[in-house]
Amino acid sequence: MRNSSRSNVDPFIVMDVMEAARQAEEQGRHIIHMEVGQPSTGAPMAARRALADALEDNSLGYTVALGLPALRRRIARLYGEWYNVDLNPDRVVVTPGSSGAFLLGFTALFDSGDRVGIGAPGYPSYRQILSALGLTPVDIETAPENRLQPVAADLEGLNLAGLMVASPGNPTGTMLDRGAMGSLIDAARAQDASFISDEIYHGLEYEAKAVTALELTDDCYVINSFSKFFSMTGWRVGWMVVPEDQVRVIERLAQNMFICAPHASQVAALAALDCQDEMRENLAVYARNRQLMLEGLPAAGFDKIAPPDGAFYVYADVSDLTTDSRSFAAEILEKAGVAVTPGLDFDPVRGATTLRFSYARGTADIKEGLSRLKVFMAARG
Amino acid sequence: MRNSSRSNVDPFIVMDVMEAARQAEEQGRHIIHMEVGQPSTGAPMAARRALADALEDNSLGYTVALGLPALRRRIARLYGEWYNVDLNPDRVVVTPGSSGAFLLGFTALFDSGDRVGIGAPGYPSYRQILSALGLTPVDIETAPENRLQPVAADLEGLNLAGLMVASPGNPTGTMLDRGAMGSLIDAARAQDASFISDEIYHGLEYEAKAVTALELTDDCYVINSFSKFFSMTGWRVGWMVVPEDQVRVIERLAQNMFICAPHASQVAALAALDCQDEMRENLAVYARNRQLMLEGLPAAGFDKIAPPDGAFYVYADVSDLTTDSRSFAAEILEKAGVAVTPGLDFDPVRGATTLRFSYARGTADIKEGLSRLKVFMAARG
Repeated sequence: MRNSSRSNVDPFIVMDVMEAARQAEEQGRHIIHMEVGQPSTGAPMAARRALADALEDNSLGYTVALGLPALRRRIARLYGEWYNVDLNPDRVVVTPGSSGAFLLGFTALFDSGDRVGIGAPGYPSYRQILSALGLTPVDIETAPENRLQPVAADLEGLNLAGLMVASPGNPTGTMLDRGAMGSLIDAARAQDASFISDEIYHGLEYEAKAVTALELTDDCYVINSFSKFFSMTGWRVGWMVVPEDQVRVIERLAQNMFICAPHASQVAALAALDCQDEMRENLAVYARNRQLMLEGLPAAGFDKIAPPDGAFYVYADVSDLTTDSRSFAAEILEKAGVAVTPGLDFDPVRGATTLRFSYARGTADIKEGLSRLKVFMAARG
Repeated sequence: MRNSSRSNVDPFIVMDVMEAARQAEEQGRHIIHMEVGQPSTGAPMAARRALADALEDNSLGYTVALGLPALRRRIARLYGEWYNVDLNPDRVVVTPGSSGAFLLGFTALFDSGDRVGIGAPGYPSYRQILSALGLTPVDIETAPENRLQPVAADLEGLNLAGLMVASPGNPTGTMLDRGAMGSLIDAARAQDASFISDEIYHGLEYEAKAVTALELTDDCYVINSFSKFFSMTGWRVGWMVVPEDQVRVIERLAQNMFICAPHASQVAALAALDCQDEMRENLAVYARNRQLMLEGLPAAGFDKIAPPDGAFYVYADVSDLTTDSRSFAAEILEKAGVAVTPGLDFDPVRGATTLRFSYARGTADIKEGLSRLKVFMAARG
């Protein structure tokens, strides 16, 4: 059976790292996992309890396509709590994870061949989903002096139908402050490009609060998820905020493409929104881990790192150590017993000289990992 | 903000019916729901229990993209139990409902503009998802003498890149027997069109067993779900069986488009596969309902119906009663207090003279609905 050309997506290199780590563990080795992009914690207690209760007396059939009305209202209220933004719940769309939001948003906005700007480095699936939908991802090479985030000048002449930004970003953890976000919104509007803000790492921020695009404009799509701050990766539930005049088109697409987000996950998510204290205990662990990374990575020799404003990643320029991040990551796994992600997943061009370190796991693991990295780098010379 | 042309999907007319029914109920009227496409029962007991247990001690993070290995193995075993087909579990892909399988399958196989044949009448989302992906749905007008299913001769000259069939079909409930399925497979192959078989209503069959395309060929995509026979609509978990050489491309697409199907739903689905006796009790209810419909609908005056081999629908030709199924459905709701679906969702052309009646609800409701329809039709004269 022949395949479409749009289905020719790149493999995730991190998957090879994970498989190599798994094999090493199978052979009895102890591996520290700095390659993973998810919390090791599960959904908050009250979320699990809410679902356990629902399992008793709720048939959990389809919900309406836009999501449980109570969940949409509660998400809208979060914008008041977090950003002092007054949000109409009608503009909130519950989605099957942020992945579902990308599919919905891109489909609502773009036609075959349309050019959509994404920052490089960036989350690999932006590029792959755009291609899979027959759209054209346009990599914007970001500069270290711009915190590896796109800036208005980067957009000149790109002829974009859309611009996707992420703050805090993956793999960098860097953020766009209000001024940086605002000038990107203006630059996108100037070329009539729809503005999409991926805010999946909001709530995981350490120095300054992350800015939502909704503080600056209503004329944008904002995407978020319960996967990161709320620690519910496998539940596949997220949300999108769209302009009022976009709700109807999103609703029709969602009815057809997904029917609804998983009902059980929506029940758990609704309860999770009232568990922010429990989530902040996880955040305190990440904050401690981040501090250890900021001391330990440079001490080990990884000293060219992007400012890790949020999320749970440190992105390091290792161009003075290697021109082949893939084999360097394999060497680190082999010799140090630490799994890390080569930058190639995030930046097909410059990723050959970068690594992503995740600190989403427990603090003991981070300490041990940093100690192993230091020994490895010292031995490597 | 401008929208793409691909996002210009038709509204579901049944949604208007459901909204009108809801309003009538709000005003205190009692409505019989023959418009719904989902069981009123929930997930099987043991499935809910398995998830309740997992909530205690499983963080329910991401699964691998192709799904929990134990679930893939158990689904493969189902093909032995149901069809005596020996299926390699590696070919089974767990998806976020059959909706996710459509998105994955269409993306893996087709490029922008590719023509994909679908039977009319048929499940409306086939058409809408194809359009949303920038592909070209090609309606195949089916004939009553062919059980409203496409036949090989219908494909001549259509220049298809793919053919999608559904047996039992929605809205008709009609099935393709082994000969009919085989000749469609051959006809698709003759024009180099990929063959996709939607088998979501398998297990809900009344006279003969439904035939899976996998009994006839390995060179096809087969799509199924836990939503219907296993009564797990809101869980958004289904599966797809693909040729061995397609697994890798599907895996990469799934990693990017969905990451994984909801973990909690996969846990419940695995347990559901061992609850077939409980599911057959639901089936016995549908069988009784179907018998009542086959007697009651003609007695009421709806006597031109497609052979309802499976699923829980009866599709009636009402061309001698109306040329506007939408207003006729509104009239039935208004005067008889029975919600039914106008055929326009399923067949944009001929659906103006058809209705779909669902018998997925309890038997008492079916009896009452049929009695109301009889009185209404007698009064209408």
